[in-house]
Amino acid sequence: MSKNPIVKGKLVCVALNDAEQFNAMQAEFAEAPYKGAPQQPVLYFKPHNTWSTDGAVVEWAQVDGSPAEQMVVGASLAVVFGKECCRVSEAEALNYVEGYTLVHDFSLVEQNYYRPDIKGKCLDTSAPIGADVVAVADPQALTVVTSVNGTVVNETPVSQLVRGVAELISTISYIMTLQPGDVIAVGFPGQRAPVAPGDKVHSVIDGVTELNNTLGQ
Amino acid sequence: MSKNPIVKGKLVCVALNDAEQFNAMQAEFAEAPYKGAPQQPVLYFKPHNTWSTDGAVVEWAQVDGSPAEQMVVGASLAVVFGKECCRVSEAEALNYVEGYTLVHDFSLVEQNYYRPDIKGKCLDTSAPIGADVVAVADPQALTVVTSVNGTVVNETPVSQLVRGVAELISTISYIMTLQPGDVIAVGFPGQRAPVAPGDKVHSVIDGVTELNNTLGQ
Repeated sequence: MSKNPIVKGKLVCVALNDAEQFNAMQAEFAEAPYKGAPQQPVLYFKPHNTWSTDGAVVEWAQVDGSPAEQMVVGASLAVVFGKECCRVSEAEALNYVEGYTLVHDFSLVEQNYYRPDIKGKCLDTSAPIGADVVAVADPQALTVVTSVNGTVVNETPVSQLVRGVAELISTISYIMTLQPGDVIAVGFPGQRAPVAPGDKVHSVIDGVTELNNTLGQ
Repeated sequence: MSKNPIVKGKLVCVALNDAEQFNAMQAEFAEAPYKGAPQQPVLYFKPHNTWSTDGAVVEWAQVDGSPAEQMVVGASLAVVFGKECCRVSEAEALNYVEGYTLVHDFSLVEQNYYRPDIKGKCLDTSAPIGADVVAVADPQALTVVTSVNGTVVNETPVSQLVRGVAELISTISYIMTLQPGDVIAVGFPGQRAPVAPGDKVHSVIDGVTELNNTLGQ
């Protein structure tokens, strides 16, 4: 498995942070098992074995020893921490950021957002992280554009997220300390893009960085 | 925060693996939100900021900026990997183990085992890991005994776990590759012990290792 030189401690991902998706799910949230929209950010981890790099081939998932029928991908702006960040206010949150990059989250198709989907999310090499960590004055002004085999499949302005970058950093910093080399992927498009073996996935944030990966066979 | 020299990549914990608890919950599993007992091990991560050491003071949790009303603790036998372990059979699983130690899992009181409890489980310094990694011929023969302020609160034979050590290693190795320095905490007592600020928690596996921690104020 490839290593990644940027993420050192933990890669925290925020699910359900696309406002379009969040609003579209209000009826579903009213029913079981949710019985109400989440009041807090819905977090998951991509562990050590998932961390991969720009240019890497992402392994096609095996499920119970057989190739997965389907995988999906989403891209997110990623916050890379430069300083230890514990219980900080939204106003001071961005002071702890070293810079920004991109994360691809490859996974199995998500069943729902209630049960923790360890099996679908912890696939080896399924979290490539961009090579550049870039200082940005206003992360809310950025847009993440993802293409599969040259066709744009998602275009997500960071301003479309339910919770913005500074709010997320503040909230998460009250749950767990963020350390230098920790990364938060702030939000993925609600509609993950289906991918097939051999597909080429390209994401870009204009003027900041880009991330290229190929699916294995 | 203290560092831990043993765990390098990820600390995977197995919930709901105490047979007494699992059997007692069958009626509850039949209802929402579960609608059926889990067919797979229920896993959660204790991330980097939780890793702590034998002898360490464990921070009393802060919830939304105020001291938590209650914390609980459970102890588990912990498997430390010495070799990369990917899709291995139950019969060969133990060949990838460097040795065994103890893990304390301090957390907020668990609400249920369905929703991922990131907030309750990812508390800073809440996962002390023993200092010794000890070779053991038969991990199923071990018993974990935990005391709070000198009174035994739990005594859990590994043989009482729903899924044993070799089966867990095999199953988890099909979900994600386990790398040298990764640790699996194989199962905690269903009844976690309540703790208060200043309490002393001591766990021991006879002839293998012990783990001592004190709760902060």
